[in-house]
Amino acid sequence: MLDFEKLYSTTARETKKSAIRELLKLADRPEVISFAGGWPSPDLFPVDAISDLTVKVLKDRGRKVLHYSKAEGEVRLKEELIRYMAKDGVQAAPENILVLTGSQQGLDMLPKAFVDRGDVVFVETPTYVGAIQSFANYGTRMVPVATDDEGMDPEALEKAIQEWKERGEGGRLKMVYLIPDFQNPSGITMSEERRLGVLEVAARHGLLVVDDAPYRDLRFEGESVPSLYTLDKNESVISLYTFSKTLVPGLRVAWAVGPKSLIDKFTTLKQSVDLCSSALAQHVVAEYLAAGMMEQYLPKFIDDYRAKRDIMLKAMDEYLPKLDGLKWTRPQGGLFIWITLPEHLDAEKLFHAAVKEDVAFVLGSAFHPYGGLKNCFRLNFSFAEPDRIREGVARLGRALDVFAKASA
Amino acid sequence: MLDFEKLYSTTARETKKSAIRELLKLADRPEVISFAGGWPSPDLFPVDAISDLTVKVLKDRGRKVLHYSKAEGEVRLKEELIRYMAKDGVQAAPENILVLTGSQQGLDMLPKAFVDRGDVVFVETPTYVGAIQSFANYGTRMVPVATDDEGMDPEALEKAIQEWKERGEGGRLKMVYLIPDFQNPSGITMSEERRLGVLEVAARHGLLVVDDAPYRDLRFEGESVPSLYTLDKNESVISLYTFSKTLVPGLRVAWAVGPKSLIDKFTTLKQSVDLCSSALAQHVVAEYLAAGMMEQYLPKFIDDYRAKRDIMLKAMDEYLPKLDGLKWTRPQGGLFIWITLPEHLDAEKLFHAAVKEDVAFVLGSAFHPYGGLKNCFRLNFSFAEPDRIREGVARLGRALDVFAKASA
Repeated sequence: MLDFEKLYSTTARETKKSAIRELLKLADRPEVISFAGGWPSPDLFPVDAISDLTVKVLKDRGRKVLHYSKAEGEVRLKEELIRYMAKDGVQAAPENILVLTGSQQGLDMLPKAFVDRGDVVFVETPTYVGAIQSFANYGTRMVPVATDDEGMDPEALEKAIQEWKERGEGGRLKMVYLIPDFQNPSGITMSEERRLGVLEVAARHGLLVVDDAPYRDLRFEGESVPSLYTLDKNESVISLYTFSKTLVPGLRVAWAVGPKSLIDKFTTLKQSVDLCSSALAQHVVAEYLAAGMMEQYLPKFIDDYRAKRDIMLKAMDEYLPKLDGLKWTRPQGGLFIWITLPEHLDAEKLFHAAVKEDVAFVLGSAFHPYGGLKNCFRLNFSFAEPDRIREGVARLGRALDVFAKASA
Repeated sequence: MLDFEKLYSTTARETKKSAIRELLKLADRPEVISFAGGWPSPDLFPVDAISDLTVKVLKDRGRKVLHYSKAEGEVRLKEELIRYMAKDGVQAAPENILVLTGSQQGLDMLPKAFVDRGDVVFVETPTYVGAIQSFANYGTRMVPVATDDEGMDPEALEKAIQEWKERGEGGRLKMVYLIPDFQNPSGITMSEERRLGVLEVAARHGLLVVDDAPYRDLRFEGESVPSLYTLDKNESVISLYTFSKTLVPGLRVAWAVGPKSLIDKFTTLKQSVDLCSSALAQHVVAEYLAAGMMEQYLPKFIDDYRAKRDIMLKAMDEYLPKLDGLKWTRPQGGLFIWITLPEHLDAEKLFHAAVKEDVAFVLGSAFHPYGGLKNCFRLNFSFAEPDRIREGVARLGRALDVFAKASA
């Protein structure tokens, strides 16, 4: 047999199976209540609408939507995206948009387009595990920047940039990667002041700013904060959006918005990444938007997730033991709550105790490029049923109580 | 505005817009008969069947198929693929299969998994333009190996390997990339002897063999040659298949078959490339296979393409001028005919003359990593209507006649 290990690229050799996925296999039993997945609630999927729209698109457009699409995406979808984003203050032309096969494809194209091995990307602490994996595949050096309940601190970013330069380790500074709205995993939304501050620092140092915005439209309450794309004066922001959290993941329709020259480059790269996204899926989403169904269904998503967040937060207040240093975020939208344990407690040990109680979550270390945040973890509140949320938090409370006492 | 050129990776800087695509824009007028695209005939797409199956899948499986799928692909589709491939003598287990979002995704993952900048891949002369682009994106050095009407010559491969080693330019030798059946662009099918010969040379030098097989099931006549995957005794072959040419491109369903450890590695990489392929599209294809529709519809594709090939070859015999050194292939399947002009004639000049006559094709140089094959070009016969094929070849004949006389 051929020895593949000897043939693999540096990327393939360094790519590890996700430790988190392996760990979560321990929790893959029906009796386990999982708060682990970053999943929307399938109960909300408008299955009949998607079925009807598929039939309609195939009837109206026939063979064309089963053929190859263009790399840049279907004009019809772009028109609807422009209208959709305009409601959020985003002004875009078709040339500013590239349709993606899921926004993970955008996360893969960012380092492909910008990173040579050893180049540097600044990220929030914590940051999204899927972005870490994509950046790591291209040999990116990630620098976690101090982040609090208002988001990444621009002064900390400036300091991190200066320190990197002073250390003289080489590696060109390329971008700042942010999830400004209802962040994954923290649930935190970046304040307008912080957004302006980070844009200013990035502009000064000539860095691209990535605005990863899968949860932006899932606001439960409070004022929307202007998006980085709308605040940007330097044509230095690329935004990634997706329908995976506001409609369904299964159509794999997402999109990037950015300066024309950058979208051009991404489009050329997309030709060799997957040629094009499905025309059929693009037209189904376009019809969904055109028919005003987003306005009809999205509020149901928001109402459901708000209710579930409330149930989870209430259960946490009720069932989690009162420990010095134990705290958690109270997000105004999105899918996630972030828990910080007292510093001396290891979330991985708690994980094993929790799985014995039949409840699961994702370790904080998954959201740090080099395995920090060992006393933190992420809870998802969108996927489980309300009763299961309460029961799961009660189990978590028991596990934490026993674990904290044993570690005291 | 941010200066992206200064920030781009080597990949992004080196990636050029396809010269071919730019050239073909000249031919993007309705009066031009295009033999350029590598497209199936949309008239053959089973639109109603796909519409009905989508409704059925959504009714039977509901929300699940609109959720995230697994990176490795849906079990249900893998079962059907195993049955489908078994008819071709391919024995595969689910662990040997990775579902891809179009086989171009496989072409992108090959260099991602195997190529560090400067590493070497051996290719046919000519070879597929989409593979050239993907390999180029990862800084692959491609070595075109002498190829005749029986496919790549194993002795030429051995010689190319020896010469590379002797030159001592560095770069590790990684794989041999082949399209053994009805090759794109040449239409040539590799003989069994050549297949065994290339496998033997590759095994001796520890190289991966890629069997890119999008056209394999489009045989019009003659005996099928055993696939590289079935001939391989060394677990050194990965095959790429797709439904883009035998069903529709628009579902973006393709798959890779290979040794378990390699499929494992590709699956890990796919997690960060696009998370997963559409579960809905996978189940539609699975139902199509399970219902025996491939057996029902594929013969229609084959009959149509055979008839069109015959029409094109007959028109070529009739309309192309008799020139010393002018020749073309007579493929037993697939989508393409490859034309070689007398050595002194430049296909790019002919292209401009042809476009004036309102007919288009793809230059041979697109199918060579470093722009060779300047006296060759590719004709597609699957897309245009029969009348248009005859008329297009007549136009091509006129353009070539005038051009040859002017160049004499």
